[in-house]
Amino acid sequence: MKKNVLIIGAGGVAQVVAHKCAQNNDILGDLHIASRTVAKCEAIIASVHEKGAMKVPGPFQAHGLDATDTGAVAALIGATRAQIVINVGSPFVNMSVLDACITTGAAYMDTAIHEDPAKICEAPPWYANYEWKKRDACKAAGVTAILGVGFDPGVVNAYARLAEDRFIDKITSIDIVDINAGSHGRWFSTNFDPEINFREFTGTVYSWQKGAWQENTMFEVGREWDLPVVGKQKSYMTGHDEVHSLANRYPDADVRFWMGFGDHYINVFTVLKNLGLLSEQPVKTAEGQEVIPLKVVKAVLPDPASLAPDYTGKTCIGTLVKGEKDGKPAEVFVYNIADHKDAFNEVGSQGISYTAGVPPVAAAILIAQGTWDAGRMVNVEDLDPAPFLDLLNGMGLPTRVKDAAGDRDMTF
Amino acid sequence: MKKNVLIIGAGGVAQVVAHKCAQNNDILGDLHIASRTVAKCEAIIASVHEKGAMKVPGPFQAHGLDATDTGAVAALIGATRAQIVINVGSPFVNMSVLDACITTGAAYMDTAIHEDPAKICEAPPWYANYEWKKRDACKAAGVTAILGVGFDPGVVNAYARLAEDRFIDKITSIDIVDINAGSHGRWFSTNFDPEINFREFTGTVYSWQKGAWQENTMFEVGREWDLPVVGKQKSYMTGHDEVHSLANRYPDADVRFWMGFGDHYINVFTVLKNLGLLSEQPVKTAEGQEVIPLKVVKAVLPDPASLAPDYTGKTCIGTLVKGEKDGKPAEVFVYNIADHKDAFNEVGSQGISYTAGVPPVAAAILIAQGTWDAGRMVNVEDLDPAPFLDLLNGMGLPTRVKDAAGDRDMTF
Repeated sequence: MKKNVLIIGAGGVAQVVAHKCAQNNDILGDLHIASRTVAKCEAIIASVHEKGAMKVPGPFQAHGLDATDTGAVAALIGATRAQIVINVGSPFVNMSVLDACITTGAAYMDTAIHEDPAKICEAPPWYANYEWKKRDACKAAGVTAILGVGFDPGVVNAYARLAEDRFIDKITSIDIVDINAGSHGRWFSTNFDPEINFREFTGTVYSWQKGAWQENTMFEVGREWDLPVVGKQKSYMTGHDEVHSLANRYPDADVRFWMGFGDHYINVFTVLKNLGLLSEQPVKTAEGQEVIPLKVVKAVLPDPASLAPDYTGKTCIGTLVKGEKDGKPAEVFVYNIADHKDAFNEVGSQGISYTAGVPPVAAAILIAQGTWDAGRMVNVEDLDPAPFLDLLNGMGLPTRVKDAAGDRDMTF
Repeated sequence: MKKNVLIIGAGGVAQVVAHKCAQNNDILGDLHIASRTVAKCEAIIASVHEKGAMKVPGPFQAHGLDATDTGAVAALIGATRAQIVINVGSPFVNMSVLDACITTGAAYMDTAIHEDPAKICEAPPWYANYEWKKRDACKAAGVTAILGVGFDPGVVNAYARLAEDRFIDKITSIDIVDINAGSHGRWFSTNFDPEINFREFTGTVYSWQKGAWQENTMFEVGREWDLPVVGKQKSYMTGHDEVHSLANRYPDADVRFWMGFGDHYINVFTVLKNLGLLSEQPVKTAEGQEVIPLKVVKAVLPDPASLAPDYTGKTCIGTLVKGEKDGKPAEVFVYNIADHKDAFNEVGSQGISYTAGVPPVAAAILIAQGTWDAGRMVNVEDLDPAPFLDLLNGMGLPTRVKDAAGDRDMTF
């Protein structure tokens, strides 16, 4: 039984995590949020109080923190007596925060894979480059570390495991589909940190097919889906974290990730990429200033958090699992529909942040209650998905299932 | 009678100026070239010697110079005993170089209007914001200053004056058309300094129509032309220097500038502009670095000078003048066709640089010979165009005329 939560990061996802922790602070205990810019933490706490989100009276404190400094993170964990750390800061800080958790014994969670700022799309499986190297250290220290427990990766991994547990005996393919059918009304914006968003798409697209890593380029492989609620949607095979862990658990299945993109996004991306403006490598201006182009692109684009008030429409994110059940071909699509406006009304964030920020709080509750306090490093598909998806049903991210038997709510 | 030329700038246009000065150094005397980066000057001089371009033996020296420093420019004019200054540096240095010429008595020429780095497309007429404020000072000092004596502005102004002198009694419209039908083979590139190129198109498009300044936005007004050699070409009404002086001489005529753009250029420009990446105002990155986005775009784009070896195809730039002749409707298109490959073979530059760089050398010859040594500040249309166009006929930029009488070479 662990309690007291330290949230690291103060972006759009952190805002959702903060609100959801507040709504469950009877279970989670004291709440803390830390970021390089303490004012952003204070603004999030203010929005929590504005919404009256705290379930019971209790502390919610803001802290300034350089999360790349393991010693500083460990000291803050000690000072706050936090036993659960939800890392939703930049993916550049995963390893320093994880190391601090191993040192202090706090449970660790994140929602995206660690990245080295100077590298793009490293060799697969990505988790083996950083996080999984700490598996033994976590086990030795009895530290619970749940990797990638946002929506995708995270809930979609649980969907795959649910299919394994209940719907498909022999899995031959896992296709994760992420469609944002919402509209933010801006000429162009990414839905989360542009730097991280574009970094996902500038390198090799890795998929696991025919028992091996396959390489493609972005926008090379397209597929149209006809999905519940959002209807027909164009998508492209994309590199994504969960492919790199699911391929480990399901080596005999093809594992692919598909993200929806409109022609406008692709055009803007293509122009920026072909001009070299998405490069993470510095260029020198005529005046001699060294600049990383991608960071300038990020600086001119809208802050994704600013999109929330005007965002309308829905997202559909799910996992299509095919294979055999009782010797016969079978398939199931496990999915969630989220609404941007509903998310804003509840927690002041748009739907993309909402789907990423709610799941780690559900996982934190399961750690606090002991259900998911594994005492080792895991990916989400390594854990029993039922209590997690059951909690999410009541926290704003209900699970639905579509298969030969129909399209229905999934209860546990 | 003036001699000894100081070229300021070391870009693609300066390279052409250097070669053409060398080819005429029997008339022009000692040659000097100065730029912030002396190595670029030395490379240009080396290319002149490689081509054996010096007509007679004589000095051609390179100098390091901060051309924004009037005192330094004046000192270099003194040290080199240059009586003719051809300013083909950045348009940000026009006024400091002009001031140095007024101080020293040297003749001044440039090929583009002065710009303040922090401002885009100021109020019309543009020349009145900077250059024309020095008219009295030039007159008092007896200094010849020929503004905008590249191709456009420059030769196209002389074409308008030629129409006035020989073809049209009463001018009702002047349309300058600039079509580059060449191909550089890159995914995207501007044909001259991207910073200056984009700055032309991000502000208000000014034209002089119905006796007043009219305002449009870029790509708002399009027109297709059917031109000699290059055929049917799409163009858009664009803000450009020469509109601002020709409207002064021909207030009863509509004066417009049309530049050819392909759909690909427009798409790239639109993406960059709408994202804010063409802004000349600094933005701050998440890391706190202050950066001017336009300078980063310039840094990632190809150096226009690097396009020359692979550039193929032709340019067509001309002036369509309409009005009356002997009481009857009349029109004439005065134009030049230039070839990118021919330009590269002769002077190592592409056609856009060639058309801009040859005319100021013709003007320098006319100043050296006394023909155009006006002893005051002028725009090109203020001078007799015949000796200028006659010289250009022999220097690689022949004038052609198309009217009711046919399409023919124009000799003087």
